[in-house]
Amino acid sequence: MRGLMMDEPLMISSLLEHAAAAHGSTEIVARTPEGGIHRTTYGAALRRSKQLAQAMIDLGMRPGDRVGSLAWNTHHHLELFYGISGTGAVLHTINPRLFDEHLVYIVNHAEDRWICVDAATLPIAERLAPQLPGVQGWIYMSVDPEVPRSSLPGLTSYERLLAAQDGAYEWPSFDERQASVICYTSGTTGQPKGVVNTHRSTLLSALVMSTADMIGGYRSGARETYMPIAPLFHGNGWQMVYTAPLSGHKLVMPGRNFEPDKLHEILSQEGVTVAAGVPTIWLTLVDYMDQKGLALPSLRAALVAGTKPPRSLIEAMEGRYGIEVAQCWGMTEALGVTRCTMPPGAADAPFDERVGHKLRQGRVAFTTKLRIVDDEGKVLPRDGEAFGHLQARGPMIAGGYLKQDAPTMDGWLQTGDVARLFPDGTVEIVDRSKDVIKSGGEWISSAAVENAAMGHPAVAQAAVIGIAHPRWQERPLLVVVRRPGKDVTAEELIEFLRPQMASWWLPDDVAFIDQLPMTATGKIHKVSLRERFKDMVSVAAE
Amino acid sequence: MRGLMMDEPLMISSLLEHAAAAHGSTEIVARTPEGGIHRTTYGAALRRSKQLAQAMIDLGMRPGDRVGSLAWNTHHHLELFYGISGTGAVLHTINPRLFDEHLVYIVNHAEDRWICVDAATLPIAERLAPQLPGVQGWIYMSVDPEVPRSSLPGLTSYERLLAAQDGAYEWPSFDERQASVICYTSGTTGQPKGVVNTHRSTLLSALVMSTADMIGGYRSGARETYMPIAPLFHGNGWQMVYTAPLSGHKLVMPGRNFEPDKLHEILSQEGVTVAAGVPTIWLTLVDYMDQKGLALPSLRAALVAGTKPPRSLIEAMEGRYGIEVAQCWGMTEALGVTRCTMPPGAADAPFDERVGHKLRQGRVAFTTKLRIVDDEGKVLPRDGEAFGHLQARGPMIAGGYLKQDAPTMDGWLQTGDVARLFPDGTVEIVDRSKDVIKSGGEWISSAAVENAAMGHPAVAQAAVIGIAHPRWQERPLLVVVRRPGKDVTAEELIEFLRPQMASWWLPDDVAFIDQLPMTATGKIHKVSLRERFKDMVSVAAE
Repeated sequence: MRGLMMDEPLMISSLLEHAAAAHGSTEIVARTPEGGIHRTTYGAALRRSKQLAQAMIDLGMRPGDRVGSLAWNTHHHLELFYGISGTGAVLHTINPRLFDEHLVYIVNHAEDRWICVDAATLPIAERLAPQLPGVQGWIYMSVDPEVPRSSLPGLTSYERLLAAQDGAYEWPSFDERQASVICYTSGTTGQPKGVVNTHRSTLLSALVMSTADMIGGYRSGARETYMPIAPLFHGNGWQMVYTAPLSGHKLVMPGRNFEPDKLHEILSQEGVTVAAGVPTIWLTLVDYMDQKGLALPSLRAALVAGTKPPRSLIEAMEGRYGIEVAQCWGMTEALGVTRCTMPPGAADAPFDERVGHKLRQGRVAFTTKLRIVDDEGKVLPRDGEAFGHLQARGPMIAGGYLKQDAPTMDGWLQTGDVARLFPDGTVEIVDRSKDVIKSGGEWISSAAVENAAMGHPAVAQAAVIGIAHPRWQERPLLVVVRRPGKDVTAEELIEFLRPQMASWWLPDDVAFIDQLPMTATGKIHKVSLRERFKDMVSVAAE
Repeated sequence: MRGLMMDEPLMISSLLEHAAAAHGSTEIVARTPEGGIHRTTYGAALRRSKQLAQAMIDLGMRPGDRVGSLAWNTHHHLELFYGISGTGAVLHTINPRLFDEHLVYIVNHAEDRWICVDAATLPIAERLAPQLPGVQGWIYMSVDPEVPRSSLPGLTSYERLLAAQDGAYEWPSFDERQASVICYTSGTTGQPKGVVNTHRSTLLSALVMSTADMIGGYRSGARETYMPIAPLFHGNGWQMVYTAPLSGHKLVMPGRNFEPDKLHEILSQEGVTVAAGVPTIWLTLVDYMDQKGLALPSLRAALVAGTKPPRSLIEAMEGRYGIEVAQCWGMTEALGVTRCTMPPGAADAPFDERVGHKLRQGRVAFTTKLRIVDDEGKVLPRDGEAFGHLQARGPMIAGGYLKQDAPTMDGWLQTGDVARLFPDGTVEIVDRSKDVIKSGGEWISSAAVENAAMGHPAVAQAAVIGIAHPRWQERPLLVVVRRPGKDVTAEELIEFLRPQMASWWLPDDVAFIDQLPMTATGKIHKVSLRERFKDMVSVAAE
């Protein structure tokens, strides 16, 4: 029996229309790439997004066309999320930190027809333009309508484009399953892969991430000020470009300045209450505040994701600075999968127990289903003990990549992570699937051994990889970079680890090297480590 | 360009699956119609809902079949929302307070094949069954598996039906636009009309009503305990049957006992933090607490909707009892249209100003668009001054009624209310469209004049209706029921009103009567008042 509700599609444009109607005078504040502070409002952002839509249509942009953004966190970048997607065209948010070969690959693969750049990314665009034959126009976003001298052919002023339009534009309505934003995963193994979000998945994700249960202590919209320190090309600033207009939060953006002094300045001056970033950002900020004797009284919650934060960071932020650490888990293919609030009972537990909970990656949030399976695809129990390949399914989970199938199994996305699931819905990421070490049919978490090794005062960096073993298939090798001026032997490290784990998890050997190979996104490049040590055969006793 | 996210439909069954996976041991507490307190959990509710689905399918229930519920707020009733809708069949929530002729009409009109009753509604079912030839089975919901003696043919025990099933049932997946729950509007004019909700509209509404911006001070799921005092046949207990499992709130239900002592007992014993009900419920409860010298320390917010609460109620609840009054607006055709939180700045305003804001009906919530139009359909400004017919549009707004068109205009639902819209998104309901008095092309709010008249100490009840006028088309007549033992003249009342409104809003005359005609849902029956005074012609000076 068919229901009788209005058949209105979920459209991204409706978010900004809502913001203008319900909190049109609420501020959007951004540090510009040039260094100044720019202030506007949701009302003005709606008008300007419509002007942008008109200008791009005049340039020849049609529904389905891809427009790249190579830009930092500014109000201009925010406008692209509406002015492009709202027309039925597709925004491709490009990570300017990628290697040149990956940048060239994704722009050509996505078939971007225009690319919007800012003062900070202009040199990258100039360097790569000759390899990007499909790009027919470059647009320069700056508060200054003057365009700098550039080798880019026909570089156009964003502000002049907008000034020529009246903003009298009505957003079209179309199938909510049409593409809205393309975001490529970083290509740690092989080429980057394009996740193609839809209007539907975006609005569902924005609603889920605006629920009261997402961040503990969440308050009425007008009382929160949000800052995505996470770049807008990383999961749309963890969806804050959508959740802030939805709930009516003042939105603050750091431009390209992620240095701790600049972050502290804008966080405190603008009264930011909730900010989102990877652990490295928070570690650097806490160090800075420690050194300078500063505080951040307005900031009440820090969304942390990307990689696991160390326990010491959570203790410092919550204990010393009164900033609630809200850890969640998601990936470009799956935004807003877990929520950060504590399970029943845990919120009132003693500090130590609460920190233990916060070391997990949140609790599953509604609309997404999670499960763990073994190598044969058998579903494992949610008992907090078993761990297996984490799989996700739901209306905001990627079902494919641009021009490529997604790694799905029976309709479930293979996240590439290994995790434990608990009966209270919490998720603990144990390792990356490709990094887990398979020793005699049992799994060893490389991440767990690395974290334990990092606890030794002489260890600056640690990586654990599997090396071939004639009987156990793989055994763990610990690779260590010592702290400058500190010394430690392999035997001392093994003895240090022994009381912390099962004996068969202990690395068979330790290799000391000068520095670890890193990826463009700051992760340890284990592929090259494995290559380097591939001829080493474990000599552990059978 | 088509997006590449999973094509997973929004299914009501996924809500309870989520609850069982993420907070399966969280409690559901209900007072039974027999008077006891029953405790269960989301985990058990999922298993029992699956057993119900199996049992009903064994009885012959097929997707699209309608199953009626004639029941109060219990765990049994909650299970119907999942065990029926989850299979693709349609739950029809029947208001047992309707007049018999309306009950007969809606059961036959919806073509209910089974009806589930409880101890309190059994007599109604027995009385009406002979007029309900399409109902092929009656199911008796009680914690006691014994079925009482009854004239109902083949009355079946709900508990025995479930006991025969193993619960090994997988919810089907189907088009999210399929019907889930039918709820009829109360037929104050003509026959009741059936609103046919969908899985899609329900999940969107549940997400919107779970956003942090819905109720000020909202906290992490495990910290809230919800109680729908609003009956489950009124907008699904204002959607709490869906929002509580979504966020993981403990859910408390009052059974059929809405007496203030029983409500106070269960609210305080179960530590309810957020409860939902019409102003009458809260007025009665505050009176009771005043008399007994009681408090309700756990209750932090009261959702109020249905009709406007008097200012004195807000002052008493917030000022004396520390319970935040969260007023919102919705209707059977449009659930979750406004949110209760304050607009920017207002939350920190002085008490008087805040109360002024709380007298409005909330702020527009995301996904729904609101506008006001005049009699010719011209859109009026959102300036807080103009008022007009309120229209709504969005994916959770009714687009039709069962076997009947909805009153739409250019794709907008005509709500039947007259409202003002403010630039900060707040909504103020001024009157019902059919009650507004049109005097010389200008509109007079009957509700505003009634509220003013109610402020006179001698007035027990007041109603304002339009009566014919040779020049002004309509002029207001004030109809008053005096308080016992109190006296007041027409002239005295007019003088009392004069300083409170524009002179042309003043009633031309006052009629004193012994009692006002009321509808089945406790509203003044203005249709019969207009009939009674239809021959009266206003004699006001031109």
